[in-house]
Amino acid sequence: MAFTEFRPLDEKSLIEYIKTVPALHSRLGNNLDDIKIKEVGDGNLNFVYIIVGPDGSFVIKQALPYIRCIGESWPMTKERAYFEAVALREQARLSPEHVPEVYHFDRTMSLIGMRYLEPPHIILRKGLIAGIEYPLLAEHISEFMARTLYFTSLLHRSTTEHKRAVAEFCGNVELCRLTEQVVFSDPYKVSEYNRWTSPFLDLEAEAVRKDNILKLEVAELKSKFCERAQALIHGDLHTGSVMVTRESTQVIDPEFAFYGPMGFDVGAFLGNLILAFFAQDGHADQAYDRKTYKAWILRTIEETWNLFRKKFIALWDEHKDGSGEAYLPAIYNNPELQLLVQEKFMDDLFHDTLGFGAAKMIRRIVGVAHVEDFESITDASRRADCELRALEVAKLLLKERRKFHAITEVISAIQKF
Amino acid sequence: MAFTEFRPLDEKSLIEYIKTVPALHSRLGNNLDDIKIKEVGDGNLNFVYIIVGPDGSFVIKQALPYIRCIGESWPMTKERAYFEAVALREQARLSPEHVPEVYHFDRTMSLIGMRYLEPPHIILRKGLIAGIEYPLLAEHISEFMARTLYFTSLLHRSTTEHKRAVAEFCGNVELCRLTEQVVFSDPYKVSEYNRWTSPFLDLEAEAVRKDNILKLEVAELKSKFCERAQALIHGDLHTGSVMVTRESTQVIDPEFAFYGPMGFDVGAFLGNLILAFFAQDGHADQAYDRKTYKAWILRTIEETWNLFRKKFIALWDEHKDGSGEAYLPAIYNNPELQLLVQEKFMDDLFHDTLGFGAAKMIRRIVGVAHVEDFESITDASRRADCELRALEVAKLLLKERRKFHAITEVISAIQKF
Ligand SMILES: Nc1ncnc2c1ncn2[C@@H]1O[C@H](COP(=O)(O)OP(=O)(O)O)[C@@H](O)[C@H]1O
Ligand SMILES: Nc1ncnc2c1ncn2[C@@H]1O[C@H](COP(=O)(O)OP(=O)(O)O)[C@@H](O)[C@H]1O
Ligand SMILES: [Mg+2]
Ligand SMILES: [Mg+2]
Ligand SMILES: [Mg+2]
Ligand SMILES: [Mg+2]
Ligand SMILES: [Mg+2]
Repeated sequence: MAFTEFRPLDEKSLIEYIKTVPALHSRLGNNLDDIKIKEVGDGNLNFVYIIVGPDGSFVIKQALPYIRCIGESWPMTKERAYFEAVALREQARLSPEHVPEVYHFDRTMSLIGMRYLEPPHIILRKGLIAGIEYPLLAEHISEFMARTLYFTSLLHRSTTEHKRAVAEFCGNVELCRLTEQVVFSDPYKVSEYNRWTSPFLDLEAEAVRKDNILKLEVAELKSKFCERAQALIHGDLHTGSVMVTRESTQVIDPEFAFYGPMGFDVGAFLGNLILAFFAQDGHADQAYDRKTYKAWILRTIEETWNLFRKKFIALWDEHKDGSGEAYLPAIYNNPELQLLVQEKFMDDLFHDTLGFGAAKMIRRIVGVAHVEDFESITDASRRADCELRALEVAKLLLKERRKFHAITEVISAIQKF
Repeated sequence: MAFTEFRPLDEKSLIEYIKTVPALHSRLGNNLDDIKIKEVGDGNLNFVYIIVGPDGSFVIKQALPYIRCIGESWPMTKERAYFEAVALREQARLSPEHVPEVYHFDRTMSLIGMRYLEPPHIILRKGLIAGIEYPLLAEHISEFMARTLYFTSLLHRSTTEHKRAVAEFCGNVELCRLTEQVVFSDPYKVSEYNRWTSPFLDLEAEAVRKDNILKLEVAELKSKFCERAQALIHGDLHTGSVMVTRESTQVIDPEFAFYGPMGFDVGAFLGNLILAFFAQDGHADQAYDRKTYKAWILRTIEETWNLFRKKFIALWDEHKDGSGEAYLPAIYNNPELQLLVQEKFMDDLFHDTLGFGAAKMIRRIVGVAHVEDFESITDASRRADCELRALEVAKLLLKERRKFHAITEVISAIQKF
């Protein structure tokens, strides 16, 4: 069988496909006897197959020309697989310990072959729901974010490299538009896709749609998202795009990658941790009251930001005489000024982080795609209670973000709700 | 003679070239007898020929692969002619009364044929030096800026259209880099290209290079210039890129065009009017004391901003239910919110305008390329006096720009120096 044209694979045709691709076939020791194939795509958009044989394993991810969880009625370019592959490779180059290796990419088939993150790797979100602590999570994810964002920004790149890369990722426009719609638009208007825990949050959902100050601030964030090509961002860095064990942290699924504002990634991650925090009261039971776990989540939020800040500045200091064109050494090579410039940069990034993080929280409560953290709380009234507190914090953070200057202030605010 | 490969033209080969191009030849009524050709490129970068015959006329602009005023030692892609042609056509489509028609573009030859802006059209900067009032200038230039900036922004465009255009103009990176260097970098460091009226401004030039707050603010502006794809900007909208008569205002020379921050254009124009204002005391003599002329310049600054603001908002209101994706009607279609959003947008744009305008003033006083407004003041001490006041205003506007909320406050500040 030849695969010269796109076609959706299934467990059966996948085997035929693997036979035609030495880079995959050889990963199984060229032995297709006794291999097991399992489709595990619990994600929203694509099909993911795990292929395990006696002599090796890998994962195949295929994009179909629509959004999986909605169906063919919501078309979506399968070219997203191309941008995912480019981003995966770039991120793996910059942060190899936290990104699965890409073994194979087939643009015609919109198909990526990559390392299988074996058990006990699980999706971080599921670990957070189960109440499992990950002692290295803050260290690892801050490393991933600091390195991928710093090295793809003008702090490290020349304008020439930057504009070439920006131009290429302008091609991922359909995925950008999806974000624009579901994060920055739908929650603030009546939309057929929106849902929330009804009737408990009916008034709150309406309040979001009627909140002029909130909508004013969301417009500013949306402009930044659409216009500001600051770094190659993952674009979908929630806790469902991270796979973890106690020792390992792996970032997957950068199909939304493009040159956008750094705060969108940092905010996505922290915002989803805040959601996880507020979901805990819905998971608590007599066997596990979640008190110390909630404290661990807050600590992880705090450490993630602080480590990110530290690592980002360390990279900046280390490479300040490098080829980055934003702050030329001949102008900024003066310790006092360097400090001033970095403080301002990180303060601005902190505000972006809070704004984008809050916007991502809001959309998970009153928009189209919800999070399992809350969805798994079966009692609707109890769930609504958790969601309501998260929503209130998010609105505060979004509107008042410029008043916050340290992550501890954010933690204090969270604790008040 | 064939022109299948690039080569620099001269008065003689230009005639051969015209013969091979019906779009040009026919503009002269296919009559090359008695035509006059004159090279008039007083600009910094390119060669410009005026071709006038008994039956018609046009202008030919050719880019050579270096910067004309420096020479072959400063190479610069001749592909800039391509971006100039694309921008000219786009701007002519959006503001046909204020942009010369493009008759012909030859990418191989990096050559544009366009309407000859006949006498009495002169370069605005020369008119300002001569002390001539242009009663329609504010009206016209505000129209040009409002229309070209509004219609190429996400206020009017879809993300899909926007990203396609952004990607294309990423190709004009060499010209962007030139601006980065001469506007945002060189004036703030020791550079072989910098010059100033020495010895009078020696200390001031050094003060610019040592001013940490100024350099902090310039870094923010530079980031915005490099990262924020807000609209198709002209990129070089000083008073030397505008040709005028009392009745007509024509914008030429958009070779620096790319998707950047709107305030860079508005600021370039207003900043250069402020320079013209401070040069007047150097031009004043007993025959013409320039007092009423200075008042006219200030009035023109005020009117340009106010008319720009009014026209921009009028376009926004007129098209608010259109296809622009920044502010969806379903979210922002509420008069109170619309007002709030527009006030914030224009306030931010005002601050960008002051910041970029000030940066463009500073670079004309202590950077590589100076303006004829000052250069034509032959007495160095008198010139330095004018430049010093302009420099002080510029530093104030750049550092304190966020404190200004109306153009009248800027006018008052200017009058204090
Ligand atoms: N490299 C991998 N190793 C193991 N499991 C994976 C891998 N990539 C994806 N998965 C599984 O597939 C699911 C969906 O993958 P994901 O890339 O998030 O797809 P989608 O874009 O549809 O969200 C993940 O939640 C995870 O369970
Ligand atoms: N369409 C035109 N009609 C008349 N004169 C023109 C025209 N275009 C350019 N010029 C003259 O040529 C000069 C240089 O043109 P310009 O486009 O500014 O070149 P540069 O990019 O080298 O600055 C202008 O200052 C003006 O005097
Ligand atoms: Mg996913
Ligand atoms: Mg790995
Ligand atoms: Mg995905
Ligand atoms: Mg010019
Ligand atoms: Mg020019």
